[in-house]
Amino acid sequence: MGFSVDVSRLDNRCHTPSAAVLHRGSERDAALNDFCVPVNAYFPTPEMLRQLHAKLEHVLKYYPDENRNIAEVVAENFDLEPGNVVMGNGSTELIAWIHRVWEMKRLMTPVPTFGRWTDYPLENGTCVQFHQRREDELFQLNVDRLLAETRALGCTAVAICNPNNPTGRLTDRNRLLELLDRLADLELIVIDESFLDFAGIDDVPTMIHEAVKRSNVIVLKSLGKNFGLHGMRAGYAVTNPHWAEKLRRAVPAWNVNAVAELIIRSGFEQQDAYQASREATIVDRNYLRFQLEQFDQLTVFPSEANFVFVKLAEELDGIQIRNRLLREFGVLIRECGSKFGSTSQYYRIAARPKRDCDQLAAAFRKVLATLNSNTRQEPRISSHLLG
Amino acid sequence: MGFSVDVSRLDNRCHTPSAAVLHRGSERDAALNDFCVPVNAYFPTPEMLRQLHAKLEHVLKYYPDENRNIAEVVAENFDLEPGNVVMGNGSTELIAWIHRVWEMKRLMTPVPTFGRWTDYPLENGTCVQFHQRREDELFQLNVDRLLAETRALGCTAVAICNPNNPTGRLTDRNRLLELLDRLADLELIVIDESFLDFAGIDDVPTMIHEAVKRSNVIVLKSLGKNFGLHGMRAGYAVTNPHWAEKLRRAVPAWNVNAVAELIIRSGFEQQDAYQASREATIVDRNYLRFQLEQFDQLTVFPSEANFVFVKLAEELDGIQIRNRLLREFGVLIRECGSKFGSTSQYYRIAARPKRDCDQLAAAFRKVLATLNSNTRQEPRISSHLLG
Repeated sequence: MGFSVDVSRLDNRCHTPSAAVLHRGSERDAALNDFCVPVNAYFPTPEMLRQLHAKLEHVLKYYPDENRNIAEVVAENFDLEPGNVVMGNGSTELIAWIHRVWEMKRLMTPVPTFGRWTDYPLENGTCVQFHQRREDELFQLNVDRLLAETRALGCTAVAICNPNNPTGRLTDRNRLLELLDRLADLELIVIDESFLDFAGIDDVPTMIHEAVKRSNVIVLKSLGKNFGLHGMRAGYAVTNPHWAEKLRRAVPAWNVNAVAELIIRSGFEQQDAYQASREATIVDRNYLRFQLEQFDQLTVFPSEANFVFVKLAEELDGIQIRNRLLREFGVLIRECGSKFGSTSQYYRIAARPKRDCDQLAAAFRKVLATLNSNTRQEPRISSHLLG
Repeated sequence: MGFSVDVSRLDNRCHTPSAAVLHRGSERDAALNDFCVPVNAYFPTPEMLRQLHAKLEHVLKYYPDENRNIAEVVAENFDLEPGNVVMGNGSTELIAWIHRVWEMKRLMTPVPTFGRWTDYPLENGTCVQFHQRREDELFQLNVDRLLAETRALGCTAVAICNPNNPTGRLTDRNRLLELLDRLADLELIVIDESFLDFAGIDDVPTMIHEAVKRSNVIVLKSLGKNFGLHGMRAGYAVTNPHWAEKLRRAVPAWNVNAVAELIIRSGFEQQDAYQASREATIVDRNYLRFQLEQFDQLTVFPSEANFVFVKLAEELDGIQIRNRLLREFGVLIRECGSKFGSTSQYYRIAARPKRDCDQLAAAFRKVLATLNSNTRQEPRISSHLLG
């Protein structure tokens, strides 16, 4: 069995193209099993899609509403003032604008992390320092070490993804509050909560209500990821009113497109369905961890996101195995060699419904079985640490 | 007869909300006749919409393609190199980024014009100088006067909309080339061609092929306006490869959403239908001028865009008449009092199919008939100038 995909497009240093891109123009899209982009597989609801189809031509014909009017919808949902919320064309747009609106003389960011917090500053002349998350700490953020490095290197800004992408680790709310308190003199602290809605079923430990009270904190949220529609492009920033005004003035007018606006307006009305989708995704992530843990050649790290970070045994070639999974089984996973602080031995694998996950496990089983794993070294982390 | 619209939303200083926004939540959208947003009423094709519906869920689930890959589609269509083209989330996004990536110590822009070239620099600390287009020159750009003012005021950058919005006037290609030559030492010249596709049927006098050869010129184009889908958000910049690279590095990743990507990929395949839509729009614009010219109380200026700029007799109240057209007849026009270099006596009226235009004319006739126009002053421009 073979899959007609353009593997050369995986060489892109910054970002793995999605299954849609790899397969563009092919009639076999449906056959590709994409574990690369961590989408919420249980959202939007059929009713939201029905509404979208019904209103599509009409909303696309006209300008979308203004940023501050769409922000009202988000604010109302989270008990915030509209003046605290700035909408973005994906949280990625807000990351880019934050780099321009604030000085950020020296930015600190723990790695490996989302490429926009490493590549964007490097490509656009912002001085950025990387704080290495350590494998022997299971990639958990070491707040004391981060604080010490931030001070020692004279950093003026800090950006932390929580939970982190691709490592999936959540920093405890109290530890994060401590960090905010101890860095209250910094120019800027960004907490990127793009994947936070998949951290836990009952408790979503967001810092948005802290951000509005503090003078130097911006929280970023993704709606594309939450609502399972990465292609729509929508996210938002929550911060104090003065900063929100500054950011809103800078971002382009009509930056949220009409489809995203429609989905935002309908999505927040589907609270029960959204809650159910979060729960189902968390169940999938736990099942994915369980399935991956059966392989001796994989070290599976704890995760509080809708993806799992794994390490391949050192004698195995991460790129080769990724390519074989894709070519032979139509299974696409994110090899993390392009990320600072990571190597090709690490994969980020998105949580998917059980049936897809079983196919992933079967594909891994077949590929790994053909490799000589007798020479495998001991994993660098004792298994008792992995809990 | 009355229309249930929220007229208070028209008080927005910067931008008139679209009919969709004014009427949000109402079931009577279809009843509003929108002459405010100049959309191409003859595009996209039914086939493009069929494809969009068929692929909608799939493309929205995943990230859109990268900026440079979408740029290839545009470049191929216009015989450009992909390296010359940068995609934007509407040309408006590119305007915002140009303000950040280039220094623009002192920007010159002829007014009245698109608000993003006046309000955005003012709100974001760019020093901007306004060059007044003159009514006694029928709002045609006076290149000599613009050049003299640019030099006298020490401007380092110039932004010109061609054709201009809201005045609809096109600057002759040779005059524009002369301007580029004589300002070759400036940091930056932007030609915003957002409405150029409606300038003429045979000849679309674009400067994109000049921009790629010159060291200081960026041409902006709008796809939302051309393709009749303002809500999708898509536009692009054409410039030399070095500048294109600089701009592409700055704009956010995945800034073109998946729906816009799909429309861009399908739209450029519909050359004949697009050509026909341009022609039909130009016919509509000429019919609109013809209809408006019958009113003594309106001075109708020449237009080479898909809208017409008109002046209301001085003794009449522009806001009051706009509100009456909307409340009593469901006809929405753009009153231009919020624009620098304009007043509430001026309207921008979008070209619409003949039937809608007849309704507009009927509404104007009824509203104007109820007003005492005996006190009307002579128009400030002799009618022979209006050609």
